[in-house]
Amino acid sequence: MKIIDISWPITSDITTYKNKSDVQVLQNHSWGTSAKRESQLACGMHTGTHVDAPAHFLESGLTVDQLDLNNLMGPAQVLELSAVKNNQITKLDLSNFEIAAGAIILLKTNNSYLAANSRFEPNFVYLDRSGAEYLASKKIKAVGIDYLGIERNQPEHDTHKILFTAGVIIIEGLRLAQVVAGSYQFICLPINMIGQEAALARAILVK
Amino acid sequence: MKIIDISWPITSDITTYKNKSDVQVLQNHSWGTSAKRESQLACGMHTGTHVDAPAHFLESGLTVDQLDLNNLMGPAQVLELSAVKNNQITKLDLSNFEIAAGAIILLKTNNSYLAANSRFEPNFVYLDRSGAEYLASKKIKAVGIDYLGIERNQPEHDTHKILFTAGVIIIEGLRLAQVVAGSYQFICLPINMIGQEAALARAILVK
Repeated sequence: MKIIDISWPITSDITTYKNKSDVQVLQNHSWGTSAKRESQLACGMHTGTHVDAPAHFLESGLTVDQLDLNNLMGPAQVLELSAVKNNQITKLDLSNFEIAAGAIILLKTNNSYLAANSRFEPNFVYLDRSGAEYLASKKIKAVGIDYLGIERNQPEHDTHKILFTAGVIIIEGLRLAQVVAGSYQFICLPINMIGQEAALARAILVK
Repeated sequence: MKIIDISWPITSDITTYKNKSDVQVLQNHSWGTSAKRESQLACGMHTGTHVDAPAHFLESGLTVDQLDLNNLMGPAQVLELSAVKNNQITKLDLSNFEIAAGAIILLKTNNSYLAANSRFEPNFVYLDRSGAEYLASKKIKAVGIDYLGIERNQPEHDTHKILFTAGVIIIEGLRLAQVVAGSYQFICLPINMIGQEAALARAILVK
C-alpha cells in the first residue's frame, strides 16, 4: 500500500499560529545501566496537524472525542489551489471542481511550500466565507487545509462556524507539497482527547 | 464501516506508568466577545495509547517517525488471553493460536478491565521473554497490549529488545474490553514526533 504522510513534523521549533511559544519537546536519554530514551511533549491542541471539532467555536458543539471517525476516513479529493487571488479561496475558485457529497476535500495551496519551522505567515491562504458556504452546501464530511488556520481576520470566525454548523469537520496543518492533485483514500486519526475542542492528529493519503 | 475505537481516553486523571504525574490537560474557554475553546496537553510520549519505536531501548534504533506506517496497518488478530497464569503471557499461551507472518497481534488480557483512570496496577499482565521470542520468530509486523507496558521487572528490558531487534513495533495502552477475539483490520497512527522514541497514537479496529 502506497502511503503518503501529509502530517506536519512535530519538533520544538515547529511553526505555531501567530508564533505562540507553547510547544516544548523534551528528550531524556541515558545509555548507562538503565539504558533508554523517554520524551515528553507540551503543546496546544492546535499545533501541527490537528482536528478542530465544533466545540472550538460553538458553545454546545461536539468535542473531538464525539466525532464519528468515519468522517475522517474515506475518499478524498486534493484540490490544486495555488493560483487563487489575494491568498483567498472563494466559492468561485471551488466551483471549478466536481465536489461529491460525502467527500473529504483537501485544499492544496502555496502554504504547503512554507518550511515546517518557518516564522508564522500572517498572509497565509485561507478559505473565505463564500468558500465555506459552498463546501457546506456540498455536504462534504470534512475539509483540510495546509496551514495552521483555515481562516484569518474574521472576528466572528465565520469560516469555522459555517462549516461546524453544517457538520463539516476541519483538519488544519496538513502538508501537501509532495501531493499531486486528485483522488485518494484519506485517513486522519486524532489522539483521544476527552471533552476537548481539538486534538493532535496524524493524517495520511493512501493511493 | 464499523469502527471500534481501542484507544485509551486522555484525561488529566489518566492512569500513568508507575503513577508518574506527568500529564496535564488545560482548557481555556471564553464565551465573551472572542468566544472559543482552546486546550493544551503536556505529557510523556508513553501516555495512554502510544507506539514504542526501537529507539526507546536500542541506542541506534529507528525513531518513531522512521517507522513504516504499513507496519501499523492491516490484518490483525485479537488473542483472548484472560486465562493466563501468573499474569504472564508465555510462548505456551501463544502457541494455542495460529499466528501468520506479517500479522499484527493484539493481546487482550484482564488489563482491559481496569478503569482508564485507576491507580497503576504493578501486577499487570505482560509478555514474558519466551512470548516475545515466539512472536519475533513468527515475523509479525507489530504487537499491541492492553496496558501501559508490555513487560515488567525485566531490568534489561528483554521483551522490548527482543521485539525491536526483530523489527516488531510495539503498541501499548490499548483498550480491548469491548472487543471480541478474532480477525480485524487495524489502523494505528502515531503523531509525527520527529527523532523521538515513541508517540501518542490513536488506534482503531475496522470490521
